[in-house]
Amino acid sequence: MSDIEIARAANKKPIQEIGQKLGIPNEHLLPFGHDKAKVSEDYIKSVQGNKNGHLILVTAINPTPAGEGKTTTTVGLGDGLNAIGKKAAVCIREASLGPCFGMKGGAAGGGYAQVVPMEDMNLHFTGDFHAITSAHNLLAAMLDNHIYWGNEQEVDIRRIAYRRVMDMNDRALREIVCNLGGVANGFPREAGFDITVASEVMAILCLANDLADLEKRLGDIIVGYRRDKTPVYCRDIKADGAMTVLLQQAMQPNLVQTLENNPAFVHGGPFANIAHGCNSVVATTTALKVADYVVTEAGFGADLGAEKFFDIKCRKAGLKPEAVVLVATVRAMKMNGGVAKGDLNNENVDAVKKGCANLGRHIENIKKFGMHPIVAINHFVSDTDAEVAAIQEFVSGEGSEAVLCKHWAKGSEGIKELAEKVVEIVEAGKSDFKPLYEDDLSLFGKIEKIAKEIYRADEVIADSKIRNQLKEWEEQGYGNLPVCMAKTQYSFTTDPTRRGAPTGHDLPVREVRLSAGAGFIVAICGEIMTMPGLPKVPSAENIRINEAGQIDGLF
Amino acid sequence: MSDIEIARAANKKPIQEIGQKLGIPNEHLLPFGHDKAKVSEDYIKSVQGNKNGHLILVTAINPTPAGEGKTTTTVGLGDGLNAIGKKAAVCIREASLGPCFGMKGGAAGGGYAQVVPMEDMNLHFTGDFHAITSAHNLLAAMLDNHIYWGNEQEVDIRRIAYRRVMDMNDRALREIVCNLGGVANGFPREAGFDITVASEVMAILCLANDLADLEKRLGDIIVGYRRDKTPVYCRDIKADGAMTVLLQQAMQPNLVQTLENNPAFVHGGPFANIAHGCNSVVATTTALKVADYVVTEAGFGADLGAEKFFDIKCRKAGLKPEAVVLVATVRAMKMNGGVAKGDLNNENVDAVKKGCANLGRHIENIKKFGMHPIVAINHFVSDTDAEVAAIQEFVSGEGSEAVLCKHWAKGSEGIKELAEKVVEIVEAGKSDFKPLYEDDLSLFGKIEKIAKEIYRADEVIADSKIRNQLKEWEEQGYGNLPVCMAKTQYSFTTDPTRRGAPTGHDLPVREVRLSAGAGFIVAICGEIMTMPGLPKVPSAENIRINEAGQIDGLF
Repeated sequence: MSDIEIARAANKKPIQEIGQKLGIPNEHLLPFGHDKAKVSEDYIKSVQGNKNGHLILVTAINPTPAGEGKTTTTVGLGDGLNAIGKKAAVCIREASLGPCFGMKGGAAGGGYAQVVPMEDMNLHFTGDFHAITSAHNLLAAMLDNHIYWGNEQEVDIRRIAYRRVMDMNDRALREIVCNLGGVANGFPREAGFDITVASEVMAILCLANDLADLEKRLGDIIVGYRRDKTPVYCRDIKADGAMTVLLQQAMQPNLVQTLENNPAFVHGGPFANIAHGCNSVVATTTALKVADYVVTEAGFGADLGAEKFFDIKCRKAGLKPEAVVLVATVRAMKMNGGVAKGDLNNENVDAVKKGCANLGRHIENIKKFGMHPIVAINHFVSDTDAEVAAIQEFVSGEGSEAVLCKHWAKGSEGIKELAEKVVEIVEAGKSDFKPLYEDDLSLFGKIEKIAKEIYRADEVIADSKIRNQLKEWEEQGYGNLPVCMAKTQYSFTTDPTRRGAPTGHDLPVREVRLSAGAGFIVAICGEIMTMPGLPKVPSAENIRINEAGQIDGLF
Repeated sequence: MSDIEIARAANKKPIQEIGQKLGIPNEHLLPFGHDKAKVSEDYIKSVQGNKNGHLILVTAINPTPAGEGKTTTTVGLGDGLNAIGKKAAVCIREASLGPCFGMKGGAAGGGYAQVVPMEDMNLHFTGDFHAITSAHNLLAAMLDNHIYWGNEQEVDIRRIAYRRVMDMNDRALREIVCNLGGVANGFPREAGFDITVASEVMAILCLANDLADLEKRLGDIIVGYRRDKTPVYCRDIKADGAMTVLLQQAMQPNLVQTLENNPAFVHGGPFANIAHGCNSVVATTTALKVADYVVTEAGFGADLGAEKFFDIKCRKAGLKPEAVVLVATVRAMKMNGGVAKGDLNNENVDAVKKGCANLGRHIENIKKFGMHPIVAINHFVSDTDAEVAAIQEFVSGEGSEAVLCKHWAKGSEGIKELAEKVVEIVEAGKSDFKPLYEDDLSLFGKIEKIAKEIYRADEVIADSKIRNQLKEWEEQGYGNLPVCMAKTQYSFTTDPTRRGAPTGHDLPVREVRLSAGAGFIVAICGEIMTMPGLPKVPSAENIRINEAGQIDGLF
């Protein structure tokens, strides 16, 4: 059966029963239909005194077209932990609407390790992204309105740093001229739209601890600069209060369920390049208060995703992860070892061994954060025993362990061994999490440390304009912020074709941006697309409600 | 107490209890929180065999700055009917988000005749408008994408007739140039945004009978023209199926409650100028299947709102209203009689009598649709007995009756007399509803009939370009469509300052538009703003969550 067929056949329980597993009373679950709910702000406040559960990060090797199954493993491990008697919840990101109309929408997980309801999660879900779009665009409208009515803040319309957003793949809106049509419509200027997941408001919602913190961070957004180059903040435009009101409900984490009726928090979805790519801090911290084990994931491979999870999310939210699962597949190891996609079904132990270099480097990197990773081999039917053994042997040599997991085909039954080992790691208390760098390292120093220690670059290449910009921000008091790297996810280098564990490369930084509300500096090292386009034949052309009332073409 | 204080003090019941009053089982109510729910599509199908309840329209005199209280009376009458033992429901429109950040948001009703939850209804509610925004903009993105990838349909980019929408007051987006930035971003062209309530998709959602009808109508939207001036339809761009999927949930009517815990359907909100300004057909027809009395309202005064309700909504949906309530106030009569707003608190029986001319003309007009209107005098504390008596005497002279209603101050207790009279009218079966004109009257003939019979204009002024355009549409098969008039709501004429019952005026038609999906021709007779702006000090500047967790500044 396909993922969607499995998802449709799910025996879902009323969301109140899922909440009960975590001790959340019905009145504190704000239902959205019968299978989704938001956990109330009041309830979240009420559990702040609880002891925290154990936080487990699922990350992966660099993604390849073979697929790794990071979300599948996150969901599977959650079910596996429940199956061995632990009270566990998973925390993952929400999906973006726009891309579903270009390429097909995605399951949250796969096979027998999925979160449902799948259709809703790919469409409007509980409306969080729509709320973010509204809040984001309210500030944009208020900014242009401020200029229109006299521009008391003296915003330089050539230096506006805040774009509009839409949850749609719409290349026509990437670059526009707005305020046309004469005096009644404002002062013409260049502008543009990003997709909603690229909004700084999205990153803020995902990093804010509570509504007060949300409002403060929204106020900190820099919307543009004056002619003297001093920043104009969102709070100068007085939009922060109304934006918070628009986001009040969206700040409450969403509870849904896995196919095995275990709790899953699905909340927030910032870009994994110009933002940090993790589900919301509120969802993770709430899950930790109501579950004994919380399994979460980070975007892309460990070089980007885990690094940002540790250095941005955990640092900011004071989280202490206690175990890291690194997902790898035989097929992805083969691609890292030089095999073409068409040849992945043929046994090739040598290629697996060669490709393990990529895995090995991620293991080494994760240890730099004080963590002891365990490897999950996400099993595919084409994998041979010899290939699996090759990975296990390699990982043993790195002082770690690789566990074969069959959750895709068997659900929790197929991943109990990994769940047991994860519990062992947690109970042994071997992890001693620490970020890669201290707050007081210089901004350039932070970029350099990530580049050299994680990407293994020889040098960071940045012209004086970029270095001066970083210094300027330090003088303005932003020097203590972490750095959010925007780099290709396919390689440790900035060249997406260099798989494995490359050396002898530099890291060129093309541009730096300040996300003052989210609280990080973005270092852009390559082409970053913040508004995707649709393909020649968008999947939307085939999406429809069929005679049985089901949605065709979305998956 | 203010409206918001009364609303916050409401003793709301769980929405399932409200559904039970109408016999809707819990599993067919899709909850949104504890006080809002959508009625499932399956349930709506299951009640199609039920006998219809009685449909009552609440309309009003031309609006004045004094306020009339049309929604308040709609809600009050619903409560009044329930209080005298009838199973009654009200059907009203949803509020638009954008304007709440300019001027303060509005209650649904007022005083002790309100629908709650008020905050939600002014914010995201159940996400319907966000879904409409997404569906609308998906078509726009697919249209520009179609052109980008080769323009197989040969759309003339100078003749694109479809704009984008946003639920925001954002004048900067009224006129833009999009697709800038070079080859990768498309072919630069002029474009713009309307507010979501002005979207043809909104009008379609509100007129569609079911999902199949919705998909067909979406497919009929004209997105632009080729160089040979033949229309390009939404279905040529293949967006209709995916738009329907995005709107599937939004098509289900929303159930909430009045302060007296009676059922209220709040669904859809098309503009009352370039569209027909009524709540959705699905909500009204569903309410008629589950309630014995359904009270609904139409936008603006009876010259625009009731005419469109009758000639567009009732005609299209096959509805047969059985009673019409015409709302008037002493204060509004005084303004129609020439009194300035500052002098409304002083008794002025002569001005009331003079202003009754406006009311009288609406009574005459409503009779032209085969209906026998009853007048509701929505009581204000400043009204004197003599003033009230003046209206009642005038209305008697017109062969009708005017009932003093005190629902604003007393809830259902204050409007029982009107409820009893409405039941009498319905039970007497005196109404014999018919639209003003037949389908086969020419398009210009329809405009002329409305202008002469309803607005009492001497002539319709339209240049040959407009007349030829109407003939062209007739040749293309659109001649049987009704006409949707876009005219100022403040006067029977196109001059908003001419109150009372003016004569000796013409109706100039400036522009005509074809809404082929919604199924009407729009005749624009004056300035129509489809994207509002924000005022110098937008209310958004003062909106925030206060220390008590309540929303300040929204009302």
